[in-house]
Amino acid sequence: MVKINEHYTEIGNNYLFAEVAKRVREFKANYPEKQVISLGIGDITQAIAPAVIEAIHKATDEMSDAKTLRGYAPDAGYDFLVNAILKHEFQDRGIHIEADEIFVSDGAKSDTGNIGDILGQDNQIAITDPAYPVYVDTNLMSGRNIELLPCTPDNHFVPPFPKKTADVIYLCYPNNPTGTVLTKDQLKLWVDYAIEHQSLILFDAAYEAFVSQENIPHSIFEIEGARQVAIEFRSFSKTAGFTGLRCGYTIVPKDLFAKTSKGEKLSLNALWKRRQSTKFNGTAYIIQRGAEAVFTPEGQTQTKETIAYYMQNAKIIKEALESLGLSCYGGVNAPYIWCQTPDKMTSWEFFDLLLNKVQVVGTPGSGFGASGEGFFRFTAFGNREATLQAVERIKTCLGTENN
Amino acid sequence: MVKINEHYTEIGNNYLFAEVAKRVREFKANYPEKQVISLGIGDITQAIAPAVIEAIHKATDEMSDAKTLRGYAPDAGYDFLVNAILKHEFQDRGIHIEADEIFVSDGAKSDTGNIGDILGQDNQIAITDPAYPVYVDTNLMSGRNIELLPCTPDNHFVPPFPKKTADVIYLCYPNNPTGTVLTKDQLKLWVDYAIEHQSLILFDAAYEAFVSQENIPHSIFEIEGARQVAIEFRSFSKTAGFTGLRCGYTIVPKDLFAKTSKGEKLSLNALWKRRQSTKFNGTAYIIQRGAEAVFTPEGQTQTKETIAYYMQNAKIIKEALESLGLSCYGGVNAPYIWCQTPDKMTSWEFFDLLLNKVQVVGTPGSGFGASGEGFFRFTAFGNREATLQAVERIKTCLGTENN
Repeated sequence: MVKINEHYTEIGNNYLFAEVAKRVREFKANYPEKQVISLGIGDITQAIAPAVIEAIHKATDEMSDAKTLRGYAPDAGYDFLVNAILKHEFQDRGIHIEADEIFVSDGAKSDTGNIGDILGQDNQIAITDPAYPVYVDTNLMSGRNIELLPCTPDNHFVPPFPKKTADVIYLCYPNNPTGTVLTKDQLKLWVDYAIEHQSLILFDAAYEAFVSQENIPHSIFEIEGARQVAIEFRSFSKTAGFTGLRCGYTIVPKDLFAKTSKGEKLSLNALWKRRQSTKFNGTAYIIQRGAEAVFTPEGQTQTKETIAYYMQNAKIIKEALESLGLSCYGGVNAPYIWCQTPDKMTSWEFFDLLLNKVQVVGTPGSGFGASGEGFFRFTAFGNREATLQAVERIKTCLGTENN
Repeated sequence: MVKINEHYTEIGNNYLFAEVAKRVREFKANYPEKQVISLGIGDITQAIAPAVIEAIHKATDEMSDAKTLRGYAPDAGYDFLVNAILKHEFQDRGIHIEADEIFVSDGAKSDTGNIGDILGQDNQIAITDPAYPVYVDTNLMSGRNIELLPCTPDNHFVPPFPKKTADVIYLCYPNNPTGTVLTKDQLKLWVDYAIEHQSLILFDAAYEAFVSQENIPHSIFEIEGARQVAIEFRSFSKTAGFTGLRCGYTIVPKDLFAKTSKGEKLSLNALWKRRQSTKFNGTAYIIQRGAEAVFTPEGQTQTKETIAYYMQNAKIIKEALESLGLSCYGGVNAPYIWCQTPDKMTSWEFFDLLLNKVQVVGTPGSGFGASGEGFFRFTAFGNREATLQAVERIKTCLGTENN
């Protein structure tokens, strides 16, 4: 008789954004005349860069001719894309990464979700709290033991070292959902911890393109020693609006080894290569050509303009919330503003208040973990008009509330 | 200290097609003037249907405008594609499947690879031999016990029931690599077996579009009772040339349940939904629009013409090999011809002979499992000219050999 992976019974049934969507749907059904503005899910709203669009059209035309058609792509990505990533994201920043350490995929969610495949079940996991729900859920699915590392205003959102030595550590910087960052010195302490304990750091750098301040690392590989201890996840989703096009990549250095119980030394690069060549069949050619175009001069100018546009939204949101006397974090090196709820409301109470009273949707902080309770995440990915309108509505709502 | 999934050490390092590519690369380096023809890896060579190309262009233009842009797609696919699949592949054939039983993905390799995520480690697995290597490799990666079911001319390539009761059974029909099929009655015996033993059948129907004879099922859900015991994998790769565009889908009926060790009844549909919403982020919008276009009248005409073209190649290859006195299987309801090697050569001996003597590349049967030893797989996915040339070369080679 078929047996299921029983660890699946240990995770909740409601994915955070599904619950948000459900409440919004119910509200709209009850009040069809009301117009809802979302500063909730971190999805992009601005057009894809013309350079990317043009590259996809061109590649699509190649697929219409047997002479230029491309079939199966290399599992780890076409050389043209791997080399463009290597040059622009690493070599130009003086970071030592090699081409066969870059694995192109259909996105960072798949990679952060699937990376556990190559890791044993008996690893002790440390995850910052709050965090992107995929880290916790995928480790629950594998039955691993998890220690959460609370990140709050009390510790300035710098995760404390775990009480129990961690074998695997998830770090996401710039952080989703708090929008906070680690300086190079702060991140160096984690690399040192990992070297000391022979731990693996899974570093999610999906938001690195939003870093605006100096001394804030774009990549963990800017830190000395990281090649021995870290895997890094990157994405075109927020960098270039690829949420609906699907492309990301993962860096697995060849300096990264783990010993088996028999003392055999195994390369994590070789293991991930084997995983991807067995359970993945490459990213669509036309999408990879689109991603390559992000690195052309036009692509760079266009995508950076869009990022600046979103970061202006972040500034607008943050200033408005702070003018209401709310404590806010993030929004400077990240497209997220992490805001303390007013009057000690719970995250979901604040969600319901904003939805019901002024039809603004955000994401309840408690959905990202227990330490997110009492916080609320706003995203800067809206269009300007909607963002300005949302901000006015929030002012009206909280003005009324507080008087 | 980080621990790896040690089951990865139980699988060989060389993926079949990587070894084929390596030998071809070495040959070409030694003999740069020789022109090699491949009837090896099952990759398409004919242009993508104009209807598909047009749909991708149109969708790409939508992404260039904030008003029509699409961000994150629904994890299980857009309604427009799910409904097109539902109507054309199932309802029009009188098969009962519901929309929320269809999960669109980036391809059948990902899904056949990832499905093990929701299954317990302690399942007894049965896999036909020879088989697509992903089934065996992914189960080795999970440390599961596997029984191989030899499929040879002796049993007319109809897999025998396992000696040890199987909890999970992999069946692929039309079969890769043998090109053979099961009739409805033959497949019904397997559905009955699964019902009796509460087993799960993982049915890979990636090649269903090549079925030309009546009474050969396109879908396992044509068989009574299959909704209680089967998951089916489908692909646009061979149906519509999507090997480089990446789209497939998996059917998980809501009638499919498994009990936990505590006696709790769990829906596999809900588990797969949870897996995909946690570790996958949807298929690119523009690709889904391309896949939708396969089901338009133009798309149907165009893709069926290409399939007919490939099947004409199959006929050419099969007739040529049989004229040389070789026993051949498949090639009628599948784009693969499974051919017994001449003079009791091993599969790799025959590979080296064809490569070195006449520069024709095929796939050694032993790469698909022990029962594939002494066989060789030719694919019908070449272009006509190359196929005809390859056939002439093989005739020359074996003519010389045999005289």
